[in-house]
Amino acid sequence: MIKVGIVGGTGYTGVELLRLLAQHPEVSVEAITSRSEAGKNVTAMYPNLRGYYDRLAFTAPDAKQLGDMDAVFFATPHGVAHALAGELLECGTRVIDLSADFRLRDVAEWEAWYGQTHGAPALLEEAVYGLPEVNREAIKRARLIAVPGCYPTAVQLGFLPLLKAGMIDPGQLIADCKTGVTGAGRGAKVGSLLAEASESLKAYAAGGHRHLPEIRQGLVAAHNGEINLTFIPHLTPMIRGIHATLYGQLIAEPEADLQTLFEHCYADEPFVDVMPPGSHPETRSVKGNNTCRLAVHRPEGSNTVVVLSVIDNLVKGASGQAVQNLNLMFGRDETLGLAAPALMP
Amino acid sequence: MIKVGIVGGTGYTGVELLRLLAQHPEVSVEAITSRSEAGKNVTAMYPNLRGYYDRLAFTAPDAKQLGDMDAVFFATPHGVAHALAGELLECGTRVIDLSADFRLRDVAEWEAWYGQTHGAPALLEEAVYGLPEVNREAIKRARLIAVPGCYPTAVQLGFLPLLKAGMIDPGQLIADCKTGVTGAGRGAKVGSLLAEASESLKAYAAGGHRHLPEIRQGLVAAHNGEINLTFIPHLTPMIRGIHATLYGQLIAEPEADLQTLFEHCYADEPFVDVMPPGSHPETRSVKGNNTCRLAVHRPEGSNTVVVLSVIDNLVKGASGQAVQNLNLMFGRDETLGLAAPALMP
Amino acid sequence: MIKVGIVGGTGYTGVELLRLLAQHPEVSVEAITSRSEAGKNVTAMYPNLRGYYDRLAFTAPDAKQLGDMDAVFFATPHGVAHALAGELLECGTRVIDLSADFRLRDVAEWEAWYGQTHGAPALLEEAVYGLPEVNREAIKRARLIAVPGCYPTAVQLGFLPLLKAGMIDPGQLIADCKTGVTGAGRGAKVGSLLAEASESLKAYAAGGHRHLPEIRQGLVAAHNGEINLTFIPHLTPMIRGIHATLYGQLIAEPEADLQTLFEHCYADEPFVDVMPPGSHPETRSVKGNNTCRLAVHRPEGSNTVVVLSVIDNLVKGASGQAVQNLNLMFGRDETLGLAAPALMP
Amino acid sequence: MIKVGIVGGTGYTGVELLRLLAQHPEVSVEAITSRSEAGKNVTAMYPNLRGYYDRLAFTAPDAKQLGDMDAVFFATPHGVAHALAGELLECGTRVIDLSADFRLRDVAEWEAWYGQTHGAPALLEEAVYGLPEVNREAIKRARLIAVPGCYPTAVQLGFLPLLKAGMIDPGQLIADCKTGVTGAGRGAKVGSLLAEASESLKAYAAGGHRHLPEIRQGLVAAHNGEINLTFIPHLTPMIRGIHATLYGQLIAEPEADLQTLFEHCYADEPFVDVMPPGSHPETRSVKGNNTCRLAVHRPEGSNTVVVLSVIDNLVKGASGQAVQNLNLMFGRDETLGLAAPALMP
Repeated sequence: MIKVGIVGGTGYTGVELLRLLAQHPEVSVEAITSRSEAGKNVTAMYPNLRGYYDRLAFTAPDAKQLGDMDAVFFATPHGVAHALAGELLECGTRVIDLSADFRLRDVAEWEAWYGQTHGAPALLEEAVYGLPEVNREAIKRARLIAVPGCYPTAVQLGFLPLLKAGMIDPGQLIADCKTGVTGAGRGAKVGSLLAEASESLKAYAAGGHRHLPEIRQGLVAAHNGEINLTFIPHLTPMIRGIHATLYGQLIAEPEADLQTLFEHCYADEPFVDVMPPGSHPETRSVKGNNTCRLAVHRPEGSNTVVVLSVIDNLVKGASGQAVQNLNLMFGRDETLGLAAPALMP
Repeated sequence: MIKVGIVGGTGYTGVELLRLLAQHPEVSVEAITSRSEAGKNVTAMYPNLRGYYDRLAFTAPDAKQLGDMDAVFFATPHGVAHALAGELLECGTRVIDLSADFRLRDVAEWEAWYGQTHGAPALLEEAVYGLPEVNREAIKRARLIAVPGCYPTAVQLGFLPLLKAGMIDPGQLIADCKTGVTGAGRGAKVGSLLAEASESLKAYAAGGHRHLPEIRQGLVAAHNGEINLTFIPHLTPMIRGIHATLYGQLIAEPEADLQTLFEHCYADEPFVDVMPPGSHPETRSVKGNNTCRLAVHRPEGSNTVVVLSVIDNLVKGASGQAVQNLNLMFGRDETLGLAAPALMP
Repeated sequence: MIKVGIVGGTGYTGVELLRLLAQHPEVSVEAITSRSEAGKNVTAMYPNLRGYYDRLAFTAPDAKQLGDMDAVFFATPHGVAHALAGELLECGTRVIDLSADFRLRDVAEWEAWYGQTHGAPALLEEAVYGLPEVNREAIKRARLIAVPGCYPTAVQLGFLPLLKAGMIDPGQLIADCKTGVTGAGRGAKVGSLLAEASESLKAYAAGGHRHLPEIRQGLVAAHNGEINLTFIPHLTPMIRGIHATLYGQLIAEPEADLQTLFEHCYADEPFVDVMPPGSHPETRSVKGNNTCRLAVHRPEGSNTVVVLSVIDNLVKGASGQAVQNLNLMFGRDETLGLAAPALMP
Repeated sequence: MIKVGIVGGTGYTGVELLRLLAQHPEVSVEAITSRSEAGKNVTAMYPNLRGYYDRLAFTAPDAKQLGDMDAVFFATPHGVAHALAGELLECGTRVIDLSADFRLRDVAEWEAWYGQTHGAPALLEEAVYGLPEVNREAIKRARLIAVPGCYPTAVQLGFLPLLKAGMIDPGQLIADCKTGVTGAGRGAKVGSLLAEASESLKAYAAGGHRHLPEIRQGLVAAHNGEINLTFIPHLTPMIRGIHATLYGQLIAEPEADLQTLFEHCYADEPFVDVMPPGSHPETRSVKGNNTCRLAVHRPEGSNTVVVLSVIDNLVKGASGQAVQNLNLMFGRDETLGLAAPALMP
């Protein structure tokens, strides 16, 4: 059994890790930390876990306890993993960080977007960006994983085949993204109340969102050159799900078979599903599931390519991808604990 | 492997069987029938099942094909199982009927509520009402199971401990029940449109609902005498879930320890969870899961007992309970295929 | 024009007053207070009011400014109206309190349920409980109105005809109530997040809710004697709306024509609508509207009477009823500002 | 009083006309037709209208009765207005068609997109496209109005200032649109069930939607030349609302003051609200209201302009705009019947 700990277990990515790991045959959750809820049983906060974790209680973070784990997940706000990751790595504990702490390779850019000093620049070199479809081999050897953000996962998986094949103009990329409200976390914010966010839809952060540099970094790597991306996120009245609608301009091969391009690109991927031509993936088709479901369109045969990409923001966009990384790091079947179909309806 | 078929697989209980059985290690779904969708792959209708049933297509019902199965589920409107069950039983195939066809023991009462002639009265004697918490041993030996309705499951599990212990007045039972819209099925009805059923709540069938005689039959058996029940169902704006709020009048033992009564009653039940005193179970705590979660209250120490009972109408209220019955009938661990925690949030 | 002020204008009942008064031809909102938002224009917080209140900004509460008003609404947490009402009344300003401060006539009971000392017991004698269907004439003469709570409005209007006619056993009343989440206010609470409260339903405060003594007080007055009520509120996934399902036991006249009883009782009421026999009122049929819509049933001809009562908790359950009181107090047509039909769908 | 009739009154735009006209001081609804519901009172279908239209019943369409009206609204599927409009115009009745029958000026294009022969090409010349912000003077003189579609209203109002000013490249327009489910009408379709459309989001008609040629026609007129538009609609889990997110490429004047451009363009418009810089309009801010609320952004100071445009699809996107046209045609204040603020929360 792989012994794991979870730092910051009260948020949505924390409880989602517990839900997924309850079905993982080779993982044992031995510690879960929360300063605010220390002493409370996890089932008191999450009654859906009654019968699964009846003896697991939140504890105050303790580096010694965490250092005894084989792996520790950080399901924390940014900055926390900076402070603890180094110590854990020295204990031989592998670190899987679901926060943004190690996602950007450029320290200055990180500091500009997150408004604070980077707490662990020395670890950046060995941190691996945990998008298995791009970095699978590096993940297998990694000690420190930066799990991709939710929007970045949906957007990169949709654009990558086109950029790697040089099919679209890298200077004219648009990502119009829609998220469910769990993307805003479990914090008690007025804007996330059912009475505020239900029966409504709005864009937010149109001036610039923290996931923009992360997406850009990934697309630049895929294109091997500069790109220009406009990214507009929207808040929608649902709990889970991201729908990324991606627009690119074809720059060559007007007869290009985009469908085959996508199918070949992801033929061996256990968690990317390219739908048949003409499909429109629904976010609910991945609710609770680790799949990214894609469809590619060329409206009216124009030069504009439209990619539709859906994920569950808490699974492939966070905790599921984290478990996928864990499986790879420990030499297990990549799909362990992630096999259940989406809940639909 | 247990070879199973599903008759009427396009509705919500049908697809829910597929979802649950995809995780069942000892079941193989070999046939699924639908007159209207014959020839279509199930994944074309339910994209969440892509990768799970890629070679399973709907076929027109064929008694010969179904007779080769070890068990057949009926996820059909009432009347269909009447017509086919006998033939299948003769083939040695066990029948698990999710419809109302074999739930009522009284033929005349069935005909009065369902407005048609009972099609298989001769089979009623051997039909077992598939509520494992009441009939576990009979289920193990049964060839023909009538899976309880959704409301009847939530209401009976809440009232049974009190009635069996003679704690409440059987002449004054009230069940105020709230359901999500999947309770109305997948039929295209105006009243079930998101534009009609969202942001609203209403009672329906206040004059009498078909689940009333089924509940009454179960409570009469528990009490071993006549009972009087008022049952008012309500349609609420959610996909899944039933919340039954049950009211009874204590008739003795003012100091009765109701909490202990419930805990003892369900101590060995894998799918009934009695919550701590003062709890209020949420329907989402069982979303996608086979548990019935209960709490018992005595507001202000009065003589009124209030039981709060929640289930997922598609799982413990239908397909999950059907799988639980299958496991019992075939001598398997009762929880096979039903182990995943609820999806929350 | 009636000059009015609103104390505590940032919550849902405050903004709802603004919405309704924007359509009132004889009211001018001249002041709105909020300590936390002082200086901010109301349209910055509530963009739906852009074009209606472009020059109205929140100010810190100022008794002198408020004392210049003809009437002041309190849309505040309990305790605030206690502190200010007396001073305003001395200025000749009428007070319409939407909080619970003056609803209970028994000081000790108020203090027990609200956990603090009553701040203005001397004003209780003249405070009028603002349920026009019961106290219309007293309201017309009142200087200080206690606007009924949301649950109490729905429950009392449903039970009153039966209790006043002596038709039901006052010792066996049950009110099973369902509310939308605005009933919990605009406070940033985790339990009210869309991610928590959507796709779920739960009872709460089963041990005793603050609206219980208020309802009891009203029913006792109607019955002119002691009553026994079990009241269980439920949180449901919608923004607005209360559905009260009321259960009583008929004590006489088995042939009683309950439909006619209700229709006669409310024949002259502008905001109570008794639906035809067999109806099931939907909460959305009163969304944004001041009507209480009722239907009365006797399931299967039994002795149990079931009344279905729906209101919009923010309108007839709060701000609309407050405006109705204002109209009565100032000798205006009771329906001014309240004439728009519900928004449906 | 203006006497009006409504043809096809059972759908969502029909009932929305009734809701709005109930508040219109100078309109009397004298006829409403429905073949399927003939004889039924409108309040039986729409209980929110009880007390407003208690004597108005659906009748079978009758050209003679309709020809006595001052104006007739068509809230019908396409093709119906073709058949009746000419006859009504000859009676001197003005026609306001909410369907697509007279929106496209090019008969061949209409026939290609709607798959049937155009039934009234001779009327096209006098039909006026009822977007008051573009055609106000023509509307005042018109006998026949083609009320714009919901998407076309939101998209055109957002792009027009930029195109008319020649600020963006007409060859690279993208409209990513999100609609609530009432956009799909009141038909009983499985895909519109709460159980299907709730907790999910999907694109649809990515290959080409019928509103595309209508939008294109309006943008071509504004630009006075060819344009290229990619239009992707999405279905979102809410009842009402459209959010159009519009992307254009600036072609000149890098220092352009887009905010001022928009504010000047719509300074005198009663139903277009340009929000302050940095705003993100919410669809709920126009729920039930006739306003189009806009915000304009240039993310990170790039060359991409992003316009956020929200309307209520049933009001400014259909019935409200129809009433606005009626007011203009009959020389009334353009805002009559349309003055109520949006319902928020």
